[in-house]
Amino acid sequence: MASALRVLGIDPGLTRCGVGVVDVRRDRSASLVHVGVVRSGVDLPIEQRLAVIAAGIRDVISTHAPDVVAVERVFAQHNRSTVMGTAQASGIALMLAGEHGLPAATHTPSEVKAAITGYGSADKLQVQTMVARVLRLDALPQPADAADALALALCHAWRRGPSAGAGSEALTPAQRAWADAERVARR
Amino acid sequence: MASALRVLGIDPGLTRCGVGVVDVRRDRSASLVHVGVVRSGVDLPIEQRLAVIAAGIRDVISTHAPDVVAVERVFAQHNRSTVMGTAQASGIALMLAGEHGLPAATHTPSEVKAAITGYGSADKLQVQTMVARVLRLDALPQPADAADALALALCHAWRRGPSAGAGSEALTPAQRAWADAERVARR
Repeated sequence: MASALRVLGIDPGLTRCGVGVVDVRRDRSASLVHVGVVRSGVDLPIEQRLAVIAAGIRDVISTHAPDVVAVERVFAQHNRSTVMGTAQASGIALMLAGEHGLPAATHTPSEVKAAITGYGSADKLQVQTMVARVLRLDALPQPADAADALALALCHAWRRGPSAGAGSEALTPAQRAWADAERVARR
Repeated sequence: MASALRVLGIDPGLTRCGVGVVDVRRDRSASLVHVGVVRSGVDLPIEQRLAVIAAGIRDVISTHAPDVVAVERVFAQHNRSTVMGTAQASGIALMLAGEHGLPAATHTPSEVKAAITGYGSADKLQVQTMVARVLRLDALPQPADAADALALALCHAWRRGPSAGAGSEALTPAQRAWADAERVARR
């Protein structure tokens, strides 16, 4: 499937970190490659929890060889009790992309919802339903962290192209060819 | 210097990440092993900046083989424009400790100031002056990030022992022996 872009989406978290890999073709159709959740025990010290998260993400990258990594953007002002762990996990996800020479991007939850359902205030069930439909899954992706990771990966692939702008300077030659072909196809 | 505890202190940051390694003996005297700043270019994509920070910290760990890692604690509500980058760098620092099997701890800036100067609202110059005196340096450690990393490492070593409590369950056998010896010496 040389013409597909393989995207790893990561919904960062310390207790549950959602990971989803999809192949997205030039016609925007997509198929599921992998979905899962990397968990770390709440009884472990923080440094070991973060190492477990890193090992799980590294395993997905080496097994599925994505072209690009998309990570949900974390905001300091939201949900303060867990935001630091989420921010730390997001830093590790981005760092692992960098270590593997992969371009990375972040998207906000609103951007993801808008890309998947058409409006930024969609609820989780609507996002899950649309992800299942796009990927032709028999059931809604579970748990929510896994569904969010798939939605993020689809969002990233769909937002690329002439109108997306940001991030296009970080494309690999293969990705640039794909973006150019998509631009032509949409004329 | 088998009786000394070697502490790596990390003042996390995306543009400048301070790293300081000290040996602290049972009598609380200390000596400088290494001090530096890991920098990442502001023009690099975030994933590459974080990978540069990780590589720099990994290099310090492999070169100087610390017994324990102390990282400054980051708060979500402070300095919002840079807090996410700082939180991401702190996550990477903690994760690297975990990957190397090293116990890690976090300390707040107030805890560090109190441990070094005796009061939690000390200014940067007072902290730098005391760090230079304790480590018998000819000049104040520069830049501030490097001085903060050394202060953090000293703070961590000095706060351990019977009164410190937190973290003692994560000691290695050698560290526990050191803590026990210190406890006896202070009776």
